[in-house]
Amino acid sequence: MRKIPNIAVIRLALYAKNLEILHKEGVELVSSVKLAEMGGANPAQIRKDLAYFGQFGVRGVGYYVKDLLDALKKVMGTDRTWRLGLFGVGNLGRALLGFKQFQERGFCFTAAFDRDMDIVGTIVSGLEVAQSEDVKKIFENSKNFDIAVLATGVDRAQECVDRVVDAGLRAVLNFTPIRLVVPPRIFIENVDFTVRLHALCYSLTTGSDVTHPHPR
Amino acid sequence: MRKIPNIAVIRLALYAKNLEILHKEGVELVSSVKLAEMGGANPAQIRKDLAYFGQFGVRGVGYYVKDLLDALKKVMGTDRTWRLGLFGVGNLGRALLGFKQFQERGFCFTAAFDRDMDIVGTIVSGLEVAQSEDVKKIFENSKNFDIAVLATGVDRAQECVDRVVDAGLRAVLNFTPIRLVVPPRIFIENVDFTVRLHALCYSLTTGSDVTHPHPR
Repeated sequence: MRKIPNIAVIRLALYAKNLEILHKEGVELVSSVKLAEMGGANPAQIRKDLAYFGQFGVRGVGYYVKDLLDALKKVMGTDRTWRLGLFGVGNLGRALLGFKQFQERGFCFTAAFDRDMDIVGTIVSGLEVAQSEDVKKIFENSKNFDIAVLATGVDRAQECVDRVVDAGLRAVLNFTPIRLVVPPRIFIENVDFTVRLHALCYSLTTGSDVTHPHPR
Repeated sequence: MRKIPNIAVIRLALYAKNLEILHKEGVELVSSVKLAEMGGANPAQIRKDLAYFGQFGVRGVGYYVKDLLDALKKVMGTDRTWRLGLFGVGNLGRALLGFKQFQERGFCFTAAFDRDMDIVGTIVSGLEVAQSEDVKKIFENSKNFDIAVLATGVDRAQECVDRVVDAGLRAVLNFTPIRLVVPPRIFIENVDFTVRLHALCYSLTTGSDVTHPHPR
């Protein structure tokens, strides 16, 4: 398989989500034009992105929704459940634990950590909060999560990610604005809410709609 | 100006953020290769994106960081402060009100609404929470915000956005998983945390790093 560009994986995730919607609605066949209308890219880009992974379409017919969805999930590694470990059980952390979308898309919080001893030991969304300091011990014993979700305060973020890496974890979803320093082969995705606001500012300023009305 | 593709605006926001970092570090000139290393796109894509807006680079020299940053901000409408109105002062809402990144990038919460009478009237992050039902009255009197940030529960999202639209607002940043129904000319951006997780899953599954290590 050729090396695919980073941005294409994000688009594939979006296509998968749109295919999931179509599948739930009972749609069996979809064209790249219709998929494009659901957001993310133009039809030519969609055909190009999907071509990275093999031959999914039938010329003049379109894509078989269920087959394409299954193939995309397999390619992306989302045909299984991924377990998340939350770091920082503050307002954002609690909101994340409560989001039903995660579970619906195969992501499940199986651990939660905080350093505040008033929170450690309490149950939040069904999880008992453990001490951040104990992550290595806990992870070595049980390996009970795959991806660390970082929702700590700014001042704790680097220290926390150091601990996560030391425990042997390799993937971090970072909700803090800190540019984390990690060794090679540790995967980090940074979430930044402000970037989405820019499409709204641009649209309001110019009157030209550049928003992405479909969830992504 | 030609019509620019939606996805380019998101990339421009990312370039602007990276230029801001360079500017703060005192860097005066930057090549498209260096900008590409900071994330978001390859050098050719960056040159193509910037070309939509005019001639910013000097061949063989690069881009003047401050000039390009100012020009991008002007094009994107982020050379001013945008005021945000929060709907839903729950865990997520409180986390958003507390995020310093918003203010640092020119976004400022100037109103907060909730329907829970136990919360209405309390002060959160310096804002007095108002009743969601009063948004039209409040907005008509003061027009004190530009963009509605929707962080309500799933069951209240559509009702809330109806009220926001009725009040005369035209832009919504939607943190709920609901596909909102709005009249034409209302701009909506949907935030979905799960999509970012997919790049991590893909990287962990294939060993090929497709993450975006720079904040975006």
